[in-house]
Amino acid sequence: MTDTKNTAVIGLGSMGYGIAQSCVAAGLITYGFDVRPEVTTRFQTESGAQGILAEVAPTLGSVVIAVLNAAQTEEVLFGPDGIARHLAPGSVVIACATVAPDFAKDMAAHCADHALHYLDAPISGGSIKAAQGALTIMASGTPAAFDAAQTTLDAMAETVFRLGDAAGPGSAMKAVNQLLAGVHIATMAEALTFGMTQGVAPDQFVEVISKCAGSSWMLENRAPHIVAGDYTPHSSVNIWPKDLGIVLDIAKSAQFSAPITAAALQQFVAAAGMGLGGEDDAAVAKVYARNAGLTLPGGKS
Amino acid sequence: MTDTKNTAVIGLGSMGYGIAQSCVAAGLITYGFDVRPEVTTRFQTESGAQGILAEVAPTLGSVVIAVLNAAQTEEVLFGPDGIARHLAPGSVVIACATVAPDFAKDMAAHCADHALHYLDAPISGGSIKAAQGALTIMASGTPAAFDAAQTTLDAMAETVFRLGDAAGPGSAMKAVNQLLAGVHIATMAEALTFGMTQGVAPDQFVEVISKCAGSSWMLENRAPHIVAGDYTPHSSVNIWPKDLGIVLDIAKSAQFSAPITAAALQQFVAAAGMGLGGEDDAAVAKVYARNAGLTLPGGKS
Repeated sequence: MTDTKNTAVIGLGSMGYGIAQSCVAAGLITYGFDVRPEVTTRFQTESGAQGILAEVAPTLGSVVIAVLNAAQTEEVLFGPDGIARHLAPGSVVIACATVAPDFAKDMAAHCADHALHYLDAPISGGSIKAAQGALTIMASGTPAAFDAAQTTLDAMAETVFRLGDAAGPGSAMKAVNQLLAGVHIATMAEALTFGMTQGVAPDQFVEVISKCAGSSWMLENRAPHIVAGDYTPHSSVNIWPKDLGIVLDIAKSAQFSAPITAAALQQFVAAAGMGLGGEDDAAVAKVYARNAGLTLPGGKS
Repeated sequence: MTDTKNTAVIGLGSMGYGIAQSCVAAGLITYGFDVRPEVTTRFQTESGAQGILAEVAPTLGSVVIAVLNAAQTEEVLFGPDGIARHLAPGSVVIACATVAPDFAKDMAAHCADHALHYLDAPISGGSIKAAQGALTIMASGTPAAFDAAQTTLDAMAETVFRLGDAAGPGSAMKAVNQLLAGVHIATMAEALTFGMTQGVAPDQFVEVISKCAGSSWMLENRAPHIVAGDYTPHSSVNIWPKDLGIVLDIAKSAQFSAPITAAALQQFVAAAGMGLGGEDDAAVAKVYARNAGLTLPGGKS
């Protein structure tokens, strides 16, 4: 017997763990699972909802899939240990990874074959908002999918955009957002380090530019990490070769030329090549600093 | 005899005209001059302060130079009809064009030869804020230059950043801001049109993205022009080949590689090549739309 108050979050990275905590805070019975057994154990101890996924699956009203990409999403649902066959008819899969719109449509169709609802539900807002239940969700799906997901969405999000009556538009909007977010991070790094060559100190950059027309959400959020010399990953460099790669794959399929996105992607690829993949994405500034012989705050001179 | 309440604004484009109106509103006796005689006549009739520049110059406490670029700034000051020789010692030149920091230093030195103060004072905020006396000014110069300019700065600006005690840092910060602003406009256009290929309507793009991490000051300001199909120039396409060109010239001199700026510049160059130079800079979206066979709001299908 399913209950909309029973949910599971699969994938307990920085976003998924926060989502799971938000579900607990909202009073849901929340099971959490991760490929890292110690993370699963830590969350289940914290939440008090303990169990094995295949066994609790039939009781779940919803499953939030907060993994990294399309391949992992498909594996979770339909792989050798896939949960689709264990979920009860009428329950809803809330799929949060950044994926191509066509992939979301495919997953929705496969879920429908199992009498499962599928909500195409990419998220925006970062790990802090995830843990506060204050994400923005770019969602699309059938009215029945939205109805089944409502309790869980309320726990996760401050804003839920309803972008369409089928899977696809949610992932399309997320791709648009990621294009902008990724380019804005790399451009912030380009501008901050360019400013350093002209005697503009990083802290002065943040103080002035955040009051000027050159500001962006990402600049205000990420540039302070560079000023502090703190690259603890809130969102890592490795996200961007993946997400901007998805954007460019979709764009190529649509015969859409996206030269600025392509240029930004190369800077993140270079950062990953420097061994910075696990650092905060503001570390893309280190590519510029190395090329120009600059010393960033906290760096070796 | 100079008076800090006497000022002149040279260059009555969309920014300069607004600045001149703000000076009038603040109670300054404000002379306005433009290379277009009918614009000079219109402003002087409106302000009531009528005269020929060479004749009124000795009475001015300040001169605001609101022309397009470095060449025009130099012409206004030191060309055949240059005003530097007519200004009284101790008066201040407030130079607002986007120029290279080294050019600003040169002009300050030449002004010092004439016993004139020079404030390196690039502006940000657009024509509407110019007319409201609510600009942001990225200023640097000697304390004496700031003192002499104070009354006029109060009339022009909501925020004046004091970035250094000599000319140069103001223009450096402006270059940093223009790098970001130009890239953000072109990236907004890239993302909006990419979204259209995925079924995201331009008005939905503005509604959702302005609430998400992909937002920027420029996106919120310019994307509505595309939604409205209104390319009345608040700031024109032609600004960006100039300003991003200045950024890349400075960057090259510093051996700083700025690949994202370079990619954005090319989109504005393409827009100018399409004959859109006089349109609002949001018209850079038409480059993407043409390449991808999309019809923007208000466009021919």
